[in-house]
Amino acid sequence: MRAAVIGGGVIGGGWAARFLLNGWDVALFDPDPEAMRRVAEVLENARRSLPALYDRPLPPEGRLARHDDLAAAVAGADWVQESVPERLDLKHRVLAGIAAAAPAEAIIGSSTSGFRPSELTAQGARAIVAHPFNPVYLLPLVELSGEAGACAGAAGILRGIGMYPLVLRREIGAHIADRLLEAVWREALWLVRDGIATTAEVDEAIRMGFGLRWAQMGLFETYRIAGGEAGMRHFLAQFGPALAWPWSRLTDVPDLDAALVEKIAAQSDAQSGHMSIRGLERLRDDNLVAMMRALRATGSGAGGVIRDHEAGLPPAVAG
Amino acid sequence: MRAAVIGGGVIGGGWAARFLLNGWDVALFDPDPEAMRRVAEVLENARRSLPALYDRPLPPEGRLARHDDLAAAVAGADWVQESVPERLDLKHRVLAGIAAAAPAEAIIGSSTSGFRPSELTAQGARAIVAHPFNPVYLLPLVELSGEAGACAGAAGILRGIGMYPLVLRREIGAHIADRLLEAVWREALWLVRDGIATTAEVDEAIRMGFGLRWAQMGLFETYRIAGGEAGMRHFLAQFGPALAWPWSRLTDVPDLDAALVEKIAAQSDAQSGHMSIRGLERLRDDNLVAMMRALRATGSGAGGVIRDHEAGLPPAVAG
Repeated sequence: MRAAVIGGGVIGGGWAARFLLNGWDVALFDPDPEAMRRVAEVLENARRSLPALYDRPLPPEGRLARHDDLAAAVAGADWVQESVPERLDLKHRVLAGIAAAAPAEAIIGSSTSGFRPSELTAQGARAIVAHPFNPVYLLPLVELSGEAGACAGAAGILRGIGMYPLVLRREIGAHIADRLLEAVWREALWLVRDGIATTAEVDEAIRMGFGLRWAQMGLFETYRIAGGEAGMRHFLAQFGPALAWPWSRLTDVPDLDAALVEKIAAQSDAQSGHMSIRGLERLRDDNLVAMMRALRATGSGAGGVIRDHEAGLPPAVAG
Repeated sequence: MRAAVIGGGVIGGGWAARFLLNGWDVALFDPDPEAMRRVAEVLENARRSLPALYDRPLPPEGRLARHDDLAAAVAGADWVQESVPERLDLKHRVLAGIAAAAPAEAIIGSSTSGFRPSELTAQGARAIVAHPFNPVYLLPLVELSGEAGACAGAAGILRGIGMYPLVLRREIGAHIADRLLEAVWREALWLVRDGIATTAEVDEAIRMGFGLRWAQMGLFETYRIAGGEAGMRHFLAQFGPALAWPWSRLTDVPDLDAALVEKIAAQSDAQSGHMSIRGLERLRDDNLVAMMRALRATGSGAGGVIRDHEAGLPPAVAG
C-alpha cells in the first residue's frame, strides 16, 4: 500500500511514521527543504515507541521518498493525507492539485483541526476530514467527517494501521475533540491571566486528577460512576443547576494580548525549560506507551485498539 | 492519627478509605443509616486497589467507627473533613458544629467543589477548602484554598497519606480543575444535544486522544511540545486567532431540560448499562492502578507522587 503525505510538519510527519511502521510506502511532498529532516526526526521517535505497544512485530517498514512535485507524490496512492497550515485558500489549492493527480479510488484526507468537510470541498475537490492527534504514530484517535462512503472506506484503512476512527454524525467546525480542548484552553487562559494558578499548576490540576480518569474512560462514563446506583438521571438532576452558576468565565473570550503571551511563555519556560522539546517528546512517548500497555490488561480505550490490531499481525517467527 | 469524616457519601467514603489505609483511625458522622454500608463498599474498593500502587506495604489499617453525634466524632481529631451536600446553609451549620467541638489545632477541610473558602467561613467557623477527586483513595490531587498557614499544614498531612496538594494562589469559585471540567461538560452537552455525537462517541473522542496526553502531562506542557523548537510564544501566536473563531458554543449555556436529560441518560445506558456501577468502579480502579504504576518508571505526574510516598514507607520485612 502507498500513502502520499502532503505537508511534512509534526502532523504530516506523524502520519508518515504511522504508515511506514505499518508497512506502507510513503511519498512525501513539502516544498520546505527542512521537511525531510523534520519527518526523519518524527520517524525516529516513532521507531523507538510504536513497536513497544505490541508483543508481535509490526510488518517490515515501508520506504519513504520525497518528491518535488505534488502530482508525482500522489500518483498511485491509496491514501493521500493533506496536512498543510490551517488557511482555507491554501487547503483549496492543495486539495485541487491532489484531486487532479490522485487515483480516482484514493482516499483523500485532510488533517484540518477546524474546517468542516463542506468548506474543504466547496470548490469541488473531493476530500474528507481525517483529523488525527499528536503524536499521530501513538494516539489512536482519528476524527472522520464528510461523505459517508468515503468515511467508511477510510475507517477500515485506519483500523488496519492501528488507529481508532470516529465518524461524526454531522459536520461541525473543529469536530469534537478540539471543541472540548478549546473550551479548556479558554478557561485555562483565564486562570493564568487572573493569577489563580501558573501554567505548571494548571497542568498538575489536570494530570493528578481528571487526566487519569480520561485516559481510560471519558466524561460521561466517569460521571455515570459518580452518580452511583441512583443513575445518570439522578446525577444530571444534581449537577444541572451548577451550569447556571457564575463559576465560569467562559462566556468571555480572553484577549491573548502581548502581556498574556509573555506571562504564559515565561511560566512555561520555568515549568519545562530544563528539558529540550526532544526530551519532552520522548518522555511523553515513554509515558504513553507504558500507559497504553497498562490498558491492554482490561482492554479499555486504547488498550482495546492495541489488542485488536495485534490480533491481525502475524505472530513472531522464531529466528 | 485520627480523622473525622463528616458525610459518608462517595467522597466522604473515599476520604475515610484514604485515611484508614494509611494507618489513621477514622470517626464517621452521617445521620443516614445507610452511610456505614456505603463507606464499607468504598473501603472494599480501596483495599483491592490502593495497596497495588506500591511495592512496599502500607501501614496497618486504622479503625473505623461510626458516631451518632457530630461532637463525639470530631473530638480528638487531627483532621476533620466535611463532605456534605453542596448547599451553603448546610455547610455553614455543619462547619459551625465542627468548629465548636474540634481541637483548636485540628485542620478542618471542606470537600466543596464550588464554594470559596471565604464563603465557607463567612459566619465565623474556620475551615479551608480541601477538594479531592473521585476516587479519593486513588487520585492524588487535592485543591487547597484558604488561610495560608492552615493550607501549609494541610499540605504536609496530605503528602503523608500519598496525596498531591495544590494550593490556589487566590480563591475562586469551583477552584481550578472543576472550572476546566465544567467547560468541557458544557461543550459536551451541546455536542450530544445537537446530535453531533453520542455520549459514547464523546467519551471515545476523549480517551483515544487527549485523555492519554493529560494523564501524564497537562495542557500547557503538551502544547509546548506541539509548538516544537519554535517555542511557546510561536505556538501562542499560531493558536491565538482560533480563539476568536465561531467554533464554540461556549458563550451559551445549554438548557438541561427534560428532553436533553432523557437523551443523555438513554445514551449512557446504551454505552455502559451492560455493567453495574460496581463493575465500572472496579474497571476504573484497575485501569488507574495500572496506568499510575506505568508512570512510576518515568516519575511523571502521579508516578512521582507514588515514588515519593513509597520512599517514606518502611520496607517489607521478610516474614
